[in-house]
Amino acid sequence: MTDTQPLPSWNDGAAKSAILDFVARVTNQGETDFVPPGERIATFDNDGTLWCEQPLQAQFFFMFDRVAELSAKDPAMVERQPFKAVLEHDYDTLFGLGKQALFELAFATHAGMTDEDFDGVARGWLATAKHPQFGRLFKECVYRPQVELLAYLRGNGFKTYIVSASGIDFMRACTEEVYGVPREQVIGSSVKMRYDVKDNRVSLIKLPELNAFDDREAKPLNIGLHIGRRPLLAFGNSDGDLAMMRYAKSGPGARLALLLHHDDAEREVAYDREFRVSPLVEALEKAGEYGITVVSMKRDWKAVF
Amino acid sequence: MTDTQPLPSWNDGAAKSAILDFVARVTNQGETDFVPPGERIATFDNDGTLWCEQPLQAQFFFMFDRVAELSAKDPAMVERQPFKAVLEHDYDTLFGLGKQALFELAFATHAGMTDEDFDGVARGWLATAKHPQFGRLFKECVYRPQVELLAYLRGNGFKTYIVSASGIDFMRACTEEVYGVPREQVIGSSVKMRYDVKDNRVSLIKLPELNAFDDREAKPLNIGLHIGRRPLLAFGNSDGDLAMMRYAKSGPGARLALLLHHDDAEREVAYDREFRVSPLVEALEKAGEYGITVVSMKRDWKAVF
Repeated sequence: MTDTQPLPSWNDGAAKSAILDFVARVTNQGETDFVPPGERIATFDNDGTLWCEQPLQAQFFFMFDRVAELSAKDPAMVERQPFKAVLEHDYDTLFGLGKQALFELAFATHAGMTDEDFDGVARGWLATAKHPQFGRLFKECVYRPQVELLAYLRGNGFKTYIVSASGIDFMRACTEEVYGVPREQVIGSSVKMRYDVKDNRVSLIKLPELNAFDDREAKPLNIGLHIGRRPLLAFGNSDGDLAMMRYAKSGPGARLALLLHHDDAEREVAYDREFRVSPLVEALEKAGEYGITVVSMKRDWKAVF
Repeated sequence: MTDTQPLPSWNDGAAKSAILDFVARVTNQGETDFVPPGERIATFDNDGTLWCEQPLQAQFFFMFDRVAELSAKDPAMVERQPFKAVLEHDYDTLFGLGKQALFELAFATHAGMTDEDFDGVARGWLATAKHPQFGRLFKECVYRPQVELLAYLRGNGFKTYIVSASGIDFMRACTEEVYGVPREQVIGSSVKMRYDVKDNRVSLIKLPELNAFDDREAKPLNIGLHIGRRPLLAFGNSDGDLAMMRYAKSGPGARLALLLHHDDAEREVAYDREFRVSPLVEALEKAGEYGITVVSMKRDWKAVF
């Protein structure tokens, strides 16, 4: 389908071969595993799979900047958790406060406006916010081999989706631009919304109330709701993606589940089980048993960014 | 973009002109209302908008047949409401039991199996079940002018979605075949699901618990969740579609909201406010105020089926 070699930023090896073999099997009309183009679904986690999630996922930096901004107008926030910990850059305290405190942080920084206004806020941040270590925009910290893989799959009749624990509206503000994935092919964590009519104009207001935390078992469940098809290919990098990978692998015919292992301290960061926000333990240990192909950033990628 | 006249089953008149003018405005590069192809979203209600909903929506007949089937194995159902009313064809009693009883009916006939198994059940029914009056398959009771409109919009770079109060999995069993709308572009009412692992195989089990009843204000809210874009065009036929139509109309630039009025007793059924399942009152009365274009089945459609 292209006149050049596919996946130029991938080194030859087991991972690249597994991808090319899988795509050949589901796209060649003669094969028993052939799947019609409209039914070829690939789902990708975002943080740590498509772009860098170290030292923390980009959305945390967005929330921290929003807290700084909001607390300037609402000084009471300065003394209240989890905002106090954020403003003091005391991340041990912040993550020690538990999941509900992180939801409170998300509600305070995402809710109380329309989804369309939030889109503007997120776009504004993404247009200027820089990664603290790499010195480039967060939205430029995407992995080149993955952008190639997304394009390669689409070139072979796949519909590519993002299925992430990050906020659905936050990701939608940049996925088209950075990955070529349109807004409607993004599934993520979400708050409930309220139908609002003002001056005969309808909007949707984001509420400080959880609708879905799109992690672990919620990923296949939300794929069932949004897509209604079992993915042929799923790509993740943490235990939060394991349920989605196993869901993809459990279907009939050729299936591919890929797990990115961050083992490249030189070009990115080497981490797995010790990462507090989204650790990788079970998926790595049981990759063999579950038929998951481990992708080594160090070994399998010619370039990272 | 086609060499034949578009919308052959639509009579010339205000409705057809409104559609052609609107499509020209959003697709002509030079126009101020131009919208890039990827952002052109059109949302359609299903029952009564794309296919016949009289004397009741098709899914009711599916549920009635399922109750007959299930009660043969579980005789206790025969004496319990709402099943008793169903089995006695006592629809006054059935609809008098209220919304919760109808949810119970849906749970009993849709839950307790995987989404994939349910798809098989629904496909099996749709392959053989006939409309009680028209004597053809339910899935053949689709409106020809609407199938033309869906194809015309897609030919002009629109992504066409179905947004219906009917069950999402029930509709997904036939929307590709009858409308050319793929499963992932269907939004509907849904039950919660459970992630299940058996013999190392993952499935999603449909539970007897409501996730979303996709009617009225829930329609725009679910469009926000699933699509994340305000539709340019929305087409409905009842007050259940009014919120979606107003949501579409409230966006900037050229917008089109269409309301099908069933005023054709000869070729279909003439009804609006008196239909107990999904009445049309406010949307018709306030169509002018809300900028909604009323489509008369009798006047605007050359053919119905």
